[in-house]
Amino acid sequence: MAQQRYFLGIDGGGTKCKARLENANGELLAEGLAGPANPVQNADLAFQSIVEAAHQAVQAANIPGLTEEKLSVCLGLAGVNVPAYRTIAENWPLPFRQVKVTTDLHVACVGAHGSPEGAIVITGTGSSSFASVNNVHTAIGGHGFPLGDKGSGAWLGWCGLSYTLEALDKLRPSTPMVSAMCRALGTDNTRKIVGEALGFTSRDYARLAPVVVNHVYKHDPIATTIMEDGKTYLEAVILRLSDLGAKRISVIGGLSSHWTGWFTPHVQQLLSPALNPPEMGAVVLARQAFKEA
Amino acid sequence: MAQQRYFLGIDGGGTKCKARLENANGELLAEGLAGPANPVQNADLAFQSIVEAAHQAVQAANIPGLTEEKLSVCLGLAGVNVPAYRTIAENWPLPFRQVKVTTDLHVACVGAHGSPEGAIVITGTGSSSFASVNNVHTAIGGHGFPLGDKGSGAWLGWCGLSYTLEALDKLRPSTPMVSAMCRALGTDNTRKIVGEALGFTSRDYARLAPVVVNHVYKHDPIATTIMEDGKTYLEAVILRLSDLGAKRISVIGGLSSHWTGWFTPHVQQLLSPALNPPEMGAVVLARQAFKEA
Repeated sequence: MAQQRYFLGIDGGGTKCKARLENANGELLAEGLAGPANPVQNADLAFQSIVEAAHQAVQAANIPGLTEEKLSVCLGLAGVNVPAYRTIAENWPLPFRQVKVTTDLHVACVGAHGSPEGAIVITGTGSSSFASVNNVHTAIGGHGFPLGDKGSGAWLGWCGLSYTLEALDKLRPSTPMVSAMCRALGTDNTRKIVGEALGFTSRDYARLAPVVVNHVYKHDPIATTIMEDGKTYLEAVILRLSDLGAKRISVIGGLSSHWTGWFTPHVQQLLSPALNPPEMGAVVLARQAFKEA
Repeated sequence: MAQQRYFLGIDGGGTKCKARLENANGELLAEGLAGPANPVQNADLAFQSIVEAAHQAVQAANIPGLTEEKLSVCLGLAGVNVPAYRTIAENWPLPFRQVKVTTDLHVACVGAHGSPEGAIVITGTGSSSFASVNNVHTAIGGHGFPLGDKGSGAWLGWCGLSYTLEALDKLRPSTPMVSAMCRALGTDNTRKIVGEALGFTSRDYARLAPVVVNHVYKHDPIATTIMEDGKTYLEAVILRLSDLGAKRISVIGGLSSHWTGWFTPHVQQLLSPALNPPEMGAVVLARQAFKEA
């Protein structure tokens, strides 16, 4: 009798690492959740988070004799499109039977469409997009803040803060968004704001994004101009994904619902809801990569 | 007989430190030039550069009995508007008789106008501006890249590179500026460009500014749009300095000549040429601060 197979999908991101454990029939056995797993930001921590999330899932499954050594795994990780980081991830001494490494975008795309074909736009702390058409993969955007990542939380917060400083310098009109940004920062002293912002990461800027988004709903003219700018970029991305031949396109990530309601009807018609989360896409890819007994 | 007085002016910047030595009659005795002197970037190096530039000037003056201990000095340094950096500079064990610490903007303004009153806009690697009206000092902009510094070299290069990546992603039309940017980077591979740009400082971005500026003169539509954006910002700064009551306004720094020719006639009429370099302003302030015998 053939040995029972187990497939684990990992979605590793900058804030958390999710694991999903399924059997050969595609039944969910257990899940795991651990800390950051972005090898670009911290490779050692990413390794630890992956091991921990997998261990949690195995423990929770509570199947006699099941250990990590029996798992066929697909890791979806940010940054592994860069050869140096892919090499790091491929050389981790992971306790699994088999490991396939691919990008977080790839597993998210497969998850969103329940199929290897389609395209996604992710807008959370950062922004990026990915298409898989006739098995050809194309990544668009995702160049990182401040060079790219338009339409992301970091970009929204940065736009709002940059405008706020110009308004405090009396170079541009003040609006309620400017006052709200100062309240969020706890000061309207330009020198203090700049001193604090010297050490800002993408995540710090992204924490200010809600100030901009909330003021779009209040019809603040500056917040609206920023949002229109981001919309123009994201719509261009979606049209490009459609031109590439992607039949199914989903917008995912923490800010997705704010953007999709803002798109023009023509662009909205190109979008389909995401069917499943990224870690489910990773399980699909693990099963595909290691289908031999 | 009263002892002869000696005044030294220091202009400390991110790339070099200039010293100017004058006697009590305002006669130039010697100059000195050393490395970076920006206490925000590297306080120890800034200290060393100041000591070295001063030493060079004293040696070059070749006056019997003249040593650093006889100098009344004004240091014009970036970042000392931030209290923490001012404290560092004020506590340096400098070998001078007397030391006054002020900002690089202040000494540049006094130099440009040969008077304590006036305003300046600096556009080089970074951008910032300063007004002294009725002895009230106001700093505008200079919030640092990427939050501020619009119209600077770093900002121009960043705008050009950011657009180039969008063009390579086929989200925006390509133009000759995009091809020239790829030649300057040695590649049109998005992944390689992004990998390299991960570690870019303001100075790295500023090195790409000439690509944008050159294409403005070639009527490249994207380079022109970027330049118009920067012009809008810098004109707003100049109009604000004028509103503050500054009678004499100068635009200085490595990119100043590119901008001034681009301004609308109304704004050009508000501008006056800089009379003297920043280190000369520092000498004026040293003489003013330590005029007692």
